Amino acid sequence: MKRLGTAIILSGPSGVGKSTVCSFLFKKYTDLKFSVSCTTRAPRPGEVDGIAYHFLTVDDFKRRIDAGDFLEWAEVHGNYYGTLKQEVLPRILNGQDIILDIDVQGMRLVRQSAQSDPRLAASFITVFLAPPSLAALEQRLRGRGTETEESIRKRLGNAAKELAAWREYDSIVVNDVAEQAADRLDAILTAAHARTATCLEEPWLA
Amino acid sequence: MKRLGTAIILSGPSGVGKSTVCSFLFKKYTDLKFSVSCTTRAPRPGEVDGIAYHFLTVDDFKRRIDAGDFLEWAEVHGNYYGTLKQEVLPRILNGQDIILDIDVQGMRLVRQSAQSDPRLAASFITVFLAPPSLAALEQRLRGRGTETEESIRKRLGNAAKELAAWREYDSIVVNDVAEQAADRLDAILTAAHARTATCLEEPWLA
Repeated sequence: MKRLGTAIILSGPSGVGKSTVCSFLFKKYTDLKFSVSCTTRAPRPGEVDGIAYHFLTVDDFKRRIDAGDFLEWAEVHGNYYGTLKQEVLPRILNGQDIILDIDVQGMRLVRQSAQSDPRLAASFITVFLAPPSLAALEQRLRGRGTETEESIRKRLGNAAKELAAWREYDSIVVNDVAEQAADRLDAILTAAHARTATCLEEPWLA
Repeated sequence: MKRLGTAIILSGPSGVGKSTVCSFLFKKYTDLKFSVSCTTRAPRPGEVDGIAYHFLTVDDFKRRIDAGDFLEWAEVHGNYYGTLKQEVLPRILNGQDIILDIDVQGMRLVRQSAQSDPRLAASFITVFLAPPSLAALEQRLRGRGTETEESIRKRLGNAAKELAAWREYDSIVVNDVAEQAADRLDAILTAAHARTATCLEEPWLA
């Protein structure tokens, strides 16, 4: 059956385990991948262009904003971050799936962009990954052992703000046990493939 | 997590295999069941009241229409058929799921009814079960060996009409291999449980 792929917008507070949960799906679906964002910040040691990020100069980034190339973008602490339409649209039109790890603000911008293109609107689903409790989230952030007390407090403050937006998402998955959360995300992806809105032809003619 | 149950409206042409596909789900989820319809037609040998149908007199049926007790109802060849709200609502409010095996016209009526109650609107999902091809559907109807040529032609004519409405449904499942179709319906049900619209509380407070 010819159909559009699915773009999962996955949000959730820092430390909730988005990468861990998705790693189970990447193992199962080898063609599935995270969308690679663009940034103007300098690469950190070990970060490869095109894998960690697409690293752009500020001039390049601004030119592509003006050209309408971004699905969503934002300026954070003087650096630009964004997702190119080119990163997502060709895959969707080719029937492939992609996961966008973006925050609540980014989700809202993508939702706006998608309204101008019915293929995008049909392909996007939004999923919020939530911790089983705020205490569990704090425990995970502290467990990393890499964060200062100030950084942990700041992340928890941001988490509370992100959590408040959960009802704006289509679906919510609680990450209690990562493999079980991955199974639920898997069901959401499988179910998304059955949506009539993404079918490009009558299935019984295929 | 406190949440509303899911009511799956399952439609598809006669002979497509709704009962067979659902039987796999009933085995896996012992609390899942088909909604029992009401009818004014006489019970056939072996049909037990409350299991095959709720058998009502015409007067009873009409009184319950006037009382607004039906989620959907229709008159077919002089007999009344319908689904009572009481059959569906208490289960949904109790977080339980139910499958409604109804036709396209019934789906449209349920969708209308659901608009008057946000709990119903959030709980209903619509799934169209399609044959892999029209030839496969004809083969299945003939394979039963219980139908006259006239009856088969009539069913195929009705099937073409039902198939034309597939885009009105949220999702479509092609019944090529019943167990695989059941797996896809299972994913749709599992994904439905993750919808934020049916959450009655913040999951991380539960």
